[in-house]
Amino acid sequence: MSVTAAKGFRASGVTAGLKPSGRPDVALVINDGPNRDAAAVFTSNRVEAAPVTWSRQVVSDGRVDAVVLNSGGANACTGAQGFADTHRTAEHVGERLQVSAGDVAVCSTGLIGELLPMDTLLAGVDAAAPALSADGGHAAAEAIMTTDTVAKECVVTGEGWTVGGMAKGAGMLAPSLATMLVVITTDVVADAATLHEVLAEATSTTFDRIDSDGCQSTNDTVLLLSSGASGVQVDRRELATAVTGVCADLARRLIGDAEGAAHDIEIEIRSAATVDDALEVARAIARNNLFKCAVFGNDPNWGRVVAAVGTTSAAFEPSQLDVTINGVQVCRGCGVGDDRSGVDLSVRDVHVIVDLHAGAQTATVWTNDLTHDYVHENSAYST
Amino acid sequence: MSVTAAKGFRASGVTAGLKPSGRPDVALVINDGPNRDAAAVFTSNRVEAAPVTWSRQVVSDGRVDAVVLNSGGANACTGAQGFADTHRTAEHVGERLQVSAGDVAVCSTGLIGELLPMDTLLAGVDAAAPALSADGGHAAAEAIMTTDTVAKECVVTGEGWTVGGMAKGAGMLAPSLATMLVVITTDVVADAATLHEVLAEATSTTFDRIDSDGCQSTNDTVLLLSSGASGVQVDRRELATAVTGVCADLARRLIGDAEGAAHDIEIEIRSAATVDDALEVARAIARNNLFKCAVFGNDPNWGRVVAAVGTTSAAFEPSQLDVTINGVQVCRGCGVGDDRSGVDLSVRDVHVIVDLHAGAQTATVWTNDLTHDYVHENSAYST
Repeated sequence: MSVTAAKGFRASGVTAGLKPSGRPDVALVINDGPNRDAAAVFTSNRVEAAPVTWSRQVVSDGRVDAVVLNSGGANACTGAQGFADTHRTAEHVGERLQVSAGDVAVCSTGLIGELLPMDTLLAGVDAAAPALSADGGHAAAEAIMTTDTVAKECVVTGEGWTVGGMAKGAGMLAPSLATMLVVITTDVVADAATLHEVLAEATSTTFDRIDSDGCQSTNDTVLLLSSGASGVQVDRRELATAVTGVCADLARRLIGDAEGAAHDIEIEIRSAATVDDALEVARAIARNNLFKCAVFGNDPNWGRVVAAVGTTSAAFEPSQLDVTINGVQVCRGCGVGDDRSGVDLSVRDVHVIVDLHAGAQTATVWTNDLTHDYVHENSAYST
Repeated sequence: MSVTAAKGFRASGVTAGLKPSGRPDVALVINDGPNRDAAAVFTSNRVEAAPVTWSRQVVSDGRVDAVVLNSGGANACTGAQGFADTHRTAEHVGERLQVSAGDVAVCSTGLIGELLPMDTLLAGVDAAAPALSADGGHAAAEAIMTTDTVAKECVVTGEGWTVGGMAKGAGMLAPSLATMLVVITTDVVADAATLHEVLAEATSTTFDRIDSDGCQSTNDTVLLLSSGASGVQVDRRELATAVTGVCADLARRLIGDAEGAAHDIEIEIRSAATVDDALEVARAIARNNLFKCAVFGNDPNWGRVVAAVGTTSAAFEPSQLDVTINGVQVCRGCGVGDDRSGVDLSVRDVHVIVDLHAGAQTATVWTNDLTHDYVHENSAYST
């Protein structure tokens, strides 16, 4: 049920015809209230898509009544016409749902640099509006998929209240924020400022720490909407834990479904001087193509790990680096450790631990291996 | 002839047995003088291989008498034993060639994290020493190949003087310096300080601007040796031009032979506020896996180019970005430009021009596409 698990929300997903595949491609989510508090985080890419520019403005007053999402086109790098199309989409949704266009967030995903076929999209909105239902969460989650192989949904419940979410994204996953669209809903009573704090905290340790291929999208959007329909006010910390839980689960599903991946890789940096140091080191490893190819080949090539670590400016003494891969400390003191043949990489999950021996901080980044299927999917995407 | 094109140098290459393939794997270069001036640049990776640590010290007094190079093992991340092995190799070469071990530079390339089989290596030195010859340049160039498919050599001549060089490297090519070993020789009369200036200038615009896969090695070394045997003193600028020419040619050969590459990509950034801005933007594109996959698929996916540009902190107004691929301005003002179907990517050479409209500076970085063969070669390297 995902985005319709919390009280006060309806959703729908329909096939408008934006995707050549004929799969569902337009989704609506409406907040029936009584409250319409909202918060969002967006891509930090300076080349941002028209819907990001629009939705940033929509959410700036802390209110969102509805969200329209489409796959089959990113509406990025489409200039003034692209922005006009986003505006027109919001106006159209506003008319159909009897809400102000200025309270309609817009999310788009797909190929960059092409205008959306507006007649097709708006006809999709016309079909999606009457289909809105309290059972429509899954249909909405399906309609935002691009190269995703599965719909991504998650629900966390408290005593009398719920947080639920849906996500799409299967490539271009990189901080800050992956190529992903995420809508999270809750029926707790919470003002926009609280929602913003909670969402920023949640994304900083979840979506911001997945890095499938180092590429950052122009469209990334994470929305958090609150209807207040449960009438329950929860402790800020409790809400933050629930939202973080939903974000962490969805983030893990994004990595688990990344394009062409054969391994999910957890890179844990220990004993760093600062969290920033730990993150810099983790990301350097996560973006090292040679390491990622080695994992694809089930090769515990720790030399490529330490070579990546060596490119960072984090505090550490090179001669003290330790690397453990799936339980085997293959590198000790930057030299040969235990027998690398003992590392089992035939499993999907790979856990790399790098100990910097430089402090007490730690951080973890999730990534994938670099595979033939990744190259195949991304060399054929627009053709 | 490469490193033996300049007067005063002999070289050799032999098969010691370090490589399972049975290809040549040990090379020697000796400077017979009368001068032994030398300069070098090394990897900036903080995890540096034992031979880099050693050779840094050797060259610090501006004198190098001989260079021993081996493929079949990088001697990186091998701790105190690895350094002792490098020292022992230099001692052995010094004895065989009647020079001081402290004037013998050592270069190694191959898998990281394994100790070199010293008996095999030293036997190789014993075979290479009597094979030294003024015709041995090509044999030396062949003995330093790893996944290279061709030996890389270049000669530039002046009036009565010569600069020649050899290089190896076919992956892990990234600034600063690729995974590469380069030896350049000249018979001009030049002191070590001049050689250092000339080499630093030459590498900053050549080897430092090739970036095959964003991965930086632990072993990168570029040596410039001068015998003074021509008796000719040339203008500093003239020497710099010749050395830069050799470096540029060898750099181009490295990119042209990069692992699994199907396209050589020249990324030219125009109208940048500063050269650093131009380089930051060029490298962001050069390291964007999605763009590199698109090029492999002959897909002029300019959206991935602007998305990469948008991740940088360079000065530009996003709405003003222009992108031209192989002569077609596919993106104008960050929007759809000329028809992308007019871009011919069936050729090997790809020329991407990004105009930032932010100043008068320019810079170019060379990279490769990301291909099935790259994944294949790098997932099977150590197995």
